[in-house]
Amino acid sequence: MISFASDYIAGAHPQVLKRLVETNLEPLPGYGEDPYCASAKEKIRAACGCPDAQVELITGGTQTNLTVISTMLREHEGVVAAETGHVNTHEAGAIEYTGHKVMELPDEEGKLTADTLAGFLRAFYSDENREHMVFPGMVYISHPTELGTLYTMAELVELSRVCQAYELPLFLDGARLGYGLMSRDTDVTLADIASLCDVFYIGGTKVGALCGEAVVFTKNNRPPHFVNAVKKRGALLAKGRLLGVQFDALFTGGLYFELSRHAIEMAEELKAILHKKGVEFYLESPTNQQFVILDDAKLEGLKRQVSYGFWEKWGPKQTVVRFCTSWSTTQEDLDFLRSVL
Amino acid sequence: MISFASDYIAGAHPQVLKRLVETNLEPLPGYGEDPYCASAKEKIRAACGCPDAQVELITGGTQTNLTVISTMLREHEGVVAAETGHVNTHEAGAIEYTGHKVMELPDEEGKLTADTLAGFLRAFYSDENREHMVFPGMVYISHPTELGTLYTMAELVELSRVCQAYELPLFLDGARLGYGLMSRDTDVTLADIASLCDVFYIGGTKVGALCGEAVVFTKNNRPPHFVNAVKKRGALLAKGRLLGVQFDALFTGGLYFELSRHAIEMAEELKAILHKKGVEFYLESPTNQQFVILDDAKLEGLKRQVSYGFWEKWGPKQTVVRFCTSWSTTQEDLDFLRSVL
Amino acid sequence: MISFASDYIAGAHPQVLKRLVETNLEPLPGYGEDPYCASAKEKIRAACGCPDAQVELITGGTQTNLTVISTMLREHEGVVAAETGHVNTHEAGAIEYTGHKVMELPDEEGKLTADTLAGFLRAFYSDENREHMVFPGMVYISHPTELGTLYTMAELVELSRVCQAYELPLFLDGARLGYGLMSRDTDVTLADIASLCDVFYIGGTKVGALCGEAVVFTKNNRPPHFVNAVKKRGALLAKGRLLGVQFDALFTGGLYFELSRHAIEMAEELKAILHKKGVEFYLESPTNQQFVILDDAKLEGLKRQVSYGFWEKWGPKQTVVRFCTSWSTTQEDLDFLRSVL
Amino acid sequence: MISFASDYIAGAHPQVLKRLVETNLEPLPGYGEDPYCASAKEKIRAACGCPDAQVELITGGTQTNLTVISTMLREHEGVVAAETGHVNTHEAGAIEYTGHKVMELPDEEGKLTADTLAGFLRAFYSDENREHMVFPGMVYISHPTELGTLYTMAELVELSRVCQAYELPLFLDGARLGYGLMSRDTDVTLADIASLCDVFYIGGTKVGALCGEAVVFTKNNRPPHFVNAVKKRGALLAKGRLLGVQFDALFTGGLYFELSRHAIEMAEELKAILHKKGVEFYLESPTNQQFVILDDAKLEGLKRQVSYGFWEKWGPKQTVVRFCTSWSTTQEDLDFLRSVL
Repeated sequence: MISFASDYIAGAHPQVLKRLVETNLEPLPGYGEDPYCASAKEKIRAACGCPDAQVELITGGTQTNLTVISTMLREHEGVVAAETGHVNTHEAGAIEYTGHKVMELPDEEGKLTADTLAGFLRAFYSDENREHMVFPGMVYISHPTELGTLYTMAELVELSRVCQAYELPLFLDGARLGYGLMSRDTDVTLADIASLCDVFYIGGTKVGALCGEAVVFTKNNRPPHFVNAVKKRGALLAKGRLLGVQFDALFTGGLYFELSRHAIEMAEELKAILHKKGVEFYLESPTNQQFVILDDAKLEGLKRQVSYGFWEKWGPKQTVVRFCTSWSTTQEDLDFLRSVL
Repeated sequence: MISFASDYIAGAHPQVLKRLVETNLEPLPGYGEDPYCASAKEKIRAACGCPDAQVELITGGTQTNLTVISTMLREHEGVVAAETGHVNTHEAGAIEYTGHKVMELPDEEGKLTADTLAGFLRAFYSDENREHMVFPGMVYISHPTELGTLYTMAELVELSRVCQAYELPLFLDGARLGYGLMSRDTDVTLADIASLCDVFYIGGTKVGALCGEAVVFTKNNRPPHFVNAVKKRGALLAKGRLLGVQFDALFTGGLYFELSRHAIEMAEELKAILHKKGVEFYLESPTNQQFVILDDAKLEGLKRQVSYGFWEKWGPKQTVVRFCTSWSTTQEDLDFLRSVL
Repeated sequence: MISFASDYIAGAHPQVLKRLVETNLEPLPGYGEDPYCASAKEKIRAACGCPDAQVELITGGTQTNLTVISTMLREHEGVVAAETGHVNTHEAGAIEYTGHKVMELPDEEGKLTADTLAGFLRAFYSDENREHMVFPGMVYISHPTELGTLYTMAELVELSRVCQAYELPLFLDGARLGYGLMSRDTDVTLADIASLCDVFYIGGTKVGALCGEAVVFTKNNRPPHFVNAVKKRGALLAKGRLLGVQFDALFTGGLYFELSRHAIEMAEELKAILHKKGVEFYLESPTNQQFVILDDAKLEGLKRQVSYGFWEKWGPKQTVVRFCTSWSTTQEDLDFLRSVL
Repeated sequence: MISFASDYIAGAHPQVLKRLVETNLEPLPGYGEDPYCASAKEKIRAACGCPDAQVELITGGTQTNLTVISTMLREHEGVVAAETGHVNTHEAGAIEYTGHKVMELPDEEGKLTADTLAGFLRAFYSDENREHMVFPGMVYISHPTELGTLYTMAELVELSRVCQAYELPLFLDGARLGYGLMSRDTDVTLADIASLCDVFYIGGTKVGALCGEAVVFTKNNRPPHFVNAVKKRGALLAKGRLLGVQFDALFTGGLYFELSRHAIEMAEELKAILHKKGVEFYLESPTNQQFVILDDAKLEGLKRQVSYGFWEKWGPKQTVVRFCTSWSTTQEDLDFLRSVL
């Protein structure tokens, strides 16, 4: 079956897997103390243009979000996020399970605007009863967002300015970061993100790895005893090499960017196909996720030939569905979709 | 200074205090095992018209909310509440601290409508990704609400129907319940609440007691080992008699209702004064809390003579403030307010 | 029935209750912002000889333990306690419920020795795998202990020295502190405790109050946003006056010490009676709790006339029971016990 | 460098890795919904002789322990474990972080005896104050234990009997299960474990996989909404295939048992070498971990040629170190060790 169901339908990029095979029998220390982890971190620091960054490799996105947020927040604080933010919607309450509130704010196509944030913070700090309230302690954004949209450089700068004015760390969830950086419609680079965010992560799971996210603390601000915190949350791999080798491969020779660019090229062609077929867009994004509205009758037939993702019901007889490309999408996949749509 | 700052400005109703004095030296078992707790519970069951209810006495409102919610929710569930609900705003994240999400829905003047709730639940159960989401596990409402408004009988019946359809317990926060029951504009009785809610509490702290809330489980649904859960949350008083004696007094001879009625009479006169003085209402309620908009200049002078509660800034030169009556409000308080407003 | 069941069988000392009555109708701000709280704190600072201490009033012992411990520990830390420590045994897992481990060490009659502590800490810091372990972050002791025993000044000094060497705050649970300070066999004063401990509390619930413990942070080390933390745990009383007025009364004219001394006098007479009757002691303490071993047959008759506390089974036909005196114990109580034992 | 440092020094068994490579580009559903997960589970059920077992694949050991324990315990319960149990020592307080106490009992060479357990449970249920205590809610054992020792069939049967008498689920941590099953000194089979335990896991990380543990619920007792619970703890892999393919390979053609047997053969030869060299054993185990006492001076030289694991200091000039074999240990490794010891 041809699949556009998600960007995690395949295993690892062949280059990544090749390195896992080549290094497989080397005896290495556990828990991320191996040289591949060290090398991967060094290459990520270089790619970020942030030589002092502290890089940590964690297995998955929800795990990363909950670990970063709960170790950076203080006792009396919650994390501010767009209503559509992954931490607020599709992580089964993982943040709350660590004892902290997700403070949701309205979004604009998945994005949290500086104005919305500033307005919220002004109101909070003018409230005389705030000692009985959850304090905003950190701002969480996704880039690309859950809807595939992207912050512009100007928007990020503004958000960062508001965060700094209130001394709030800005945390960017980059589960699909590669697909944002390689979009044709972005003016934001990896170095920009490293400069504007206090902490962010470079998604591996959805961008070429079997699993793994690389967290980058950019301001010498990694919480103390971070390994202990990771262990306590059950997130410390005994064979840290699994993450080290993969990220080392992804950041060798620009592979991460190259495979991301491929997904974007496939996405552009996908959009062209969808337009040509007259499909109505729910949201046309500049990255690898496209949301379209299809008749349920049409979907009934389609789903035997092509996998796609459910998004939400759209009235009684239609559904919003998501088509994703990824590093593993092929020209054949697109041709097939064109032929059956 | 005359105070309308809140409904917890005085100690206990004199009748309540008198009983504490009279019983003070009796040697009694601890932890709520004393006869006054038993008697109070019996009288509350009778007042609720619910002879099989399980009644538990807890020291304060936030403590009650967090204990009831976190013991009734299951692992994968959160509590649904109006955006303005106390658990969502002014409890410092107490629910999240127990590991559960507060799932906020839009309110209408503090109330959660059955339509809003039903729409949310329909959407949730039609979402194919819901296993990655927090499940709604309980519905929390306040009566009176944080804005002093009241559900009508019809509204409560509708909410209860939706809850039953989805097998969600309905939990009513009655921190100010007396003032709701004695409102001139209500058609809801204590027995109605006991019949329509799965659990609710009768507020003592704001209605005549030094402290204490009486939780009523109406469907033989008190979580097992509840005392253990209360103890674990630091909420078990060694001298449970402090709560038992007070609630026993409040539910003897209809005192709870009588002192609530007094507060309502004072509130009606307060509203008349405010209207007569041409004060603009932000929200005029049928209970003991009134929200008005006053010029900051006016407030500057007023605050030296009368205490009131800050609610929120209202544009650059005005503020919404709250005036509360309670069982302890006197005619002299009102006369003084009339003379200085 | 005559009761030696616990030291919380009666309400408040009459002087304390009198002040509650006298101040009952004064309108006061809530949440501990009233002048009685301020006055109580000032008097406690004076009694401790610690003019810069930060004092907080909390309703009960378990609540105090969990709030102090969980706000002072850092993410990677647990609290070290004697195996018999209240936090490790009879608080239903309250500390663990806040996410932190109680690290139990062997005790000597309820006491944690400096040697035991130092040995544990040495081993911990020589363990190369400690980043995978819970770090000791605080030391908890009770004085009097759960067995009624007392630390000597020399023992406290030694413990404090070890704590300082490892930069661990020393926390003293003084739920029964008055009975320790007034013991005939102690060389430890309140000022000593304030000097040697980083935080401790002066128990009110068991020493003359209806409820309430006064936490004393002695080193300008109260956790930030402490009120928020108390609120979040459901431990903030709306009518903070209830605690303020009581502690103000207890620390006026030395009442706290005077009523504690009475309990000790009663305990000394109790011990004499028990000895005279040939009762076997499980542990004879210098404070208000005495543990004796009685035949189950004997207890069967006794329990119809006198209340006592169950401690543990002692072989097939005997039980260890506890007799407590308190500020409310009378000569008549003792005479009656003498007549029926 | 030759390494006996742990049983997770190498990547995956070549057969396992081969299958990851072969299946890499197949488009598959995420989150464990793929056919390899299904096939792996089916093979595990067969290997356990437990056709109705519910099998779940989780990334690592601590993650598995905390997820299983915290979803199976009820509100008022803790988990009983040997003092040396991994959950009590080297998981950074992961269980407590979920809000539950680890109730430690004395061990005998890493094992919890039925007598110790029964004695503890008898005492607990004869304690009249138990509602203020943590209730034992589950029993955790490791097999092999953290010290490499093994329960006999008779011991397991006894433990299981005690657990059943008190209606406590018995949970067996099998992080190294293969090395236990293939020991020359065991009379316990995988089917025995499936029959005697309510839940256990088959370790992959230390026995041939890159990562992964297979949890087996044997009594139709998997907690409801388990996927949600796994997601909430950050433990749900998007590419569940990573675990499915590996366990499918491990349980094809008896690979899991075969590679475990190899590790045992290497361990037997290792023990012979150590004995021949006159090395003093701290604990000689029937599985793949051997603990010996070496002079620090000796270790100083050795550590430049051979990796081993630190266990604990042993007096001023000696250290207990651990030598592990695993599926990846070779005859050359042993020959080299023999030559340098």
